[in-house]
Amino acid sequence: MSKKLTTREKNYSKWYNELVVNADLAENSGVRGCMVIKPYGFAIWEKMQSILDRMFKETGHQNAYFPLFIPKSYFNKEAEHVDGFAKECAVVTHYRLKNTDDNKIVVDEKAKLEEELIVRPTSETIIWDTYKRWIQSYRDLPILVNQWANVVRWEMRTRLFLRTSEFLWQEGHTAHATKKEALKEAELILDIYSDFLEKTLAIPVLKGTKSSSERFAGAIETYCIETLMQDGKALQAGTSHFLGQNFAKAFNVKFTNKEGKLEYVWATSWGVSTRLMGALIMTHSDDKGLVLPPKLAPFQVVIIPIYSNNEQLDKISAQAKNIIENFKENDISVKFDNRDTQKPGWKFNEYELKGTPIRIAIGPRDLENNTCEIARRDTLIKELINFEDITSKTLSILEEMQNNLFNKALAFRKENTTTVNTYNEFKEILSTKGGFIAAHWDGTEETELKIKEETKATIRCIPINSNDSEGKCVISGKKSKQKVIFAIAY
Amino acid sequence: MSKKLTTREKNYSKWYNELVVNADLAENSGVRGCMVIKPYGFAIWEKMQSILDRMFKETGHQNAYFPLFIPKSYFNKEAEHVDGFAKECAVVTHYRLKNTDDNKIVVDEKAKLEEELIVRPTSETIIWDTYKRWIQSYRDLPILVNQWANVVRWEMRTRLFLRTSEFLWQEGHTAHATKKEALKEAELILDIYSDFLEKTLAIPVLKGTKSSSERFAGAIETYCIETLMQDGKALQAGTSHFLGQNFAKAFNVKFTNKEGKLEYVWATSWGVSTRLMGALIMTHSDDKGLVLPPKLAPFQVVIIPIYSNNEQLDKISAQAKNIIENFKENDISVKFDNRDTQKPGWKFNEYELKGTPIRIAIGPRDLENNTCEIARRDTLIKELINFEDITSKTLSILEEMQNNLFNKALAFRKENTTTVNTYNEFKEILSTKGGFIAAHWDGTEETELKIKEETKATIRCIPINSNDSEGKCVISGKKSKQKVIFAIAY
Repeated sequence: MSKKLTTREKNYSKWYNELVVNADLAENSGVRGCMVIKPYGFAIWEKMQSILDRMFKETGHQNAYFPLFIPKSYFNKEAEHVDGFAKECAVVTHYRLKNTDDNKIVVDEKAKLEEELIVRPTSETIIWDTYKRWIQSYRDLPILVNQWANVVRWEMRTRLFLRTSEFLWQEGHTAHATKKEALKEAELILDIYSDFLEKTLAIPVLKGTKSSSERFAGAIETYCIETLMQDGKALQAGTSHFLGQNFAKAFNVKFTNKEGKLEYVWATSWGVSTRLMGALIMTHSDDKGLVLPPKLAPFQVVIIPIYSNNEQLDKISAQAKNIIENFKENDISVKFDNRDTQKPGWKFNEYELKGTPIRIAIGPRDLENNTCEIARRDTLIKELINFEDITSKTLSILEEMQNNLFNKALAFRKENTTTVNTYNEFKEILSTKGGFIAAHWDGTEETELKIKEETKATIRCIPINSNDSEGKCVISGKKSKQKVIFAIAY
Repeated sequence: MSKKLTTREKNYSKWYNELVVNADLAENSGVRGCMVIKPYGFAIWEKMQSILDRMFKETGHQNAYFPLFIPKSYFNKEAEHVDGFAKECAVVTHYRLKNTDDNKIVVDEKAKLEEELIVRPTSETIIWDTYKRWIQSYRDLPILVNQWANVVRWEMRTRLFLRTSEFLWQEGHTAHATKKEALKEAELILDIYSDFLEKTLAIPVLKGTKSSSERFAGAIETYCIETLMQDGKALQAGTSHFLGQNFAKAFNVKFTNKEGKLEYVWATSWGVSTRLMGALIMTHSDDKGLVLPPKLAPFQVVIIPIYSNNEQLDKISAQAKNIIENFKENDISVKFDNRDTQKPGWKFNEYELKGTPIRIAIGPRDLENNTCEIARRDTLIKELINFEDITSKTLSILEEMQNNLFNKALAFRKENTTTVNTYNEFKEILSTKGGFIAAHWDGTEETELKIKEETKATIRCIPINSNDSEGKCVISGKKSKQKVIFAIAY
């Protein structure tokens, strides 16, 4: 039953897939490109949701729900948006099935929709069609709404969590009276995302804006957080868009300002998705399996009894009960795995694979000695400790581990961020070490495209607050305001 | 801006629609039959979700997520299920749009799916296709999984919350080694639903089973909770199905039992939906608007300052701040509405319409007298109370209100449940008073159908634990084991 993973070194991509499936996070379904998120994986996603949702609410946002389907014509209204989105998506054309005479099920051709419905790839259009009814006056602004939902983007090549045809996400859609306020909102959300990733997921992020070619379809400015995976590839973890008045104009959403004049409304939209699960896995995990920051672990501690008869199990269970009570008082979540259907060794492997931060093993000799073995998942270090110290020790390990994972990932990113001054250097670093490459760029789409075509690297972001000085583009030699970050990306 | 509702007496259905829209709960969208759940309405739904979710987890259930799409062929596998479900549903036939030469968007006929995908109307089929991979041995059982999701059933006549083409729900799908355990699970869930409705929504329920014609497609037994609305119509608020081995057989899901023999797995499924919002509204609300049980109110108290200058407002705000701090320590949720864009009278109407359980108004004279006015939404009674009593008074009103709403609804149901002994009596009660009608029934589909055709009344449930005695069917005169409950239903 022990499921050994392919090592990262041998085949990173295979390691990832095996980990996701064997750690019970997700699996492919019978539906092309759609995944099943298994209970253990979903419990991690739920923790992310609940923390992020609280952060949104603390900053004045409310949740709502908008239709899954979007009439095809809505996509026509914002010209750039349609180019970016309306192509690869699921199209509903009929609303009824019927039985044939030989008892097969077929689409009822009589039940054809007059206008096709698109399964939402993102909800700007349906939401701005709604906001048109909600907004008349400055009194109705701002609208700070978020939605937790499923979305569909038809993908040809899919990978669990990273790229699936259906995925789960949150999408915020806000409406404001002024440009300044909308920009402030887009930046506030970027800060929330960044805090969330660094403090909860223990993933260091680079904050920046996108170049025009990487910008969201319909946005004036796309802010993003970029992360670096262990294989040296970048992963975009979240985006926050300043949409200007584009959607307000497309859907004719105006408001009467305090001076009684009609103006178009200013907008933002922003989202993170189940892709974060991929970022989490690829940032911290090792060849033994998942490594989870304590703040996201479905349970932070597992207690495993080691016994050869029921009398021993009863004694260990009594001791475990005390520990669990103490843990609960200190908000430590814990599972006591006393299943008699599996051996301790099997359980040790299982919880290593699943990334449980702390494993406590208690055997008959431990009871005699008033000790138990405590093992932490990130460093794999084991210690014998006295029962009376167990709660304080556990609390301190959990805190250390949360910080350690972040610091380790930060050190990795520093080691794997290289500043280059020539295109040759650029290409060499990219083909050897990978990672983030900081290079001056002349700001043109032409240069960006050339680099992409020749190296597959894209501009991940133009860092915010970089305190960088001017220089010369590594390709064209033209003037550059600051270095930007290139990488091969997921 | 004051939005007066049509009265219930004048037009119950119109009253309902106006209330839902004007109290900012939901509205129709630009997509046929699909609603937008507005932030205030969604906040109530979120409270329902979080309480119910905790009840599921406390009884060992975990959440997971399964694909939105179901391949058409899956519906063919369970013969009864397909008859009940596969007909009126949204069918995805294509996965790409394209631009025409004149820049219109059309479906790309080249991107036609080999097999059509159905937007899930319920997930038994896709989930049992998944469980086949999860279940090999008795060690893998039970599986106690729930999913919060959107589902689509194409409806021709829709009403906000009560019947919409897309709605939100939870669907539990469990797998067990024995029939006994599966039956126990189906009954456990019925008890959870019943507790939840009575203690949280303050709606009294009748627990029962469905007659065979009203049973879920593919179930052996459907347990249900039935509620009675103020217009004398019944509303089915939740169902829990014992599915026997039907889906295990359809998807060939077997397990090795402890004796090493292969057996089919036993199943249940169960769900409640955003329809509960409709039940909540129609049970408690009045001609002034929504009435909310305190446990579900997005905020339980609103404080409205009454002032004519900023100096007054500052003094009132300082007092309000003290009150709010005390409230928060006592887990009372509160909103201080100090907007200067609306007058107090407008605000009074607004929160009455939105069902805020308690309204506190503070004016300059109140500060002098050390009092404020406290008004409760259910009885509309106002009182002057001293500031030092405000927290204890508020706590006691909230508790009273929660109980009062339940007791009022229970008294209404008792008054509107009539036992009849003849078919003439049956028809007379139905056409005058409505409500629940308890009558003996011979247990045949024939009699049930006759009643339905002649009166539109259906069997809502066969009550559990009714301690009823045998009698004779009001139609056929044949022997009947117990009285069953008939009503006109939503």
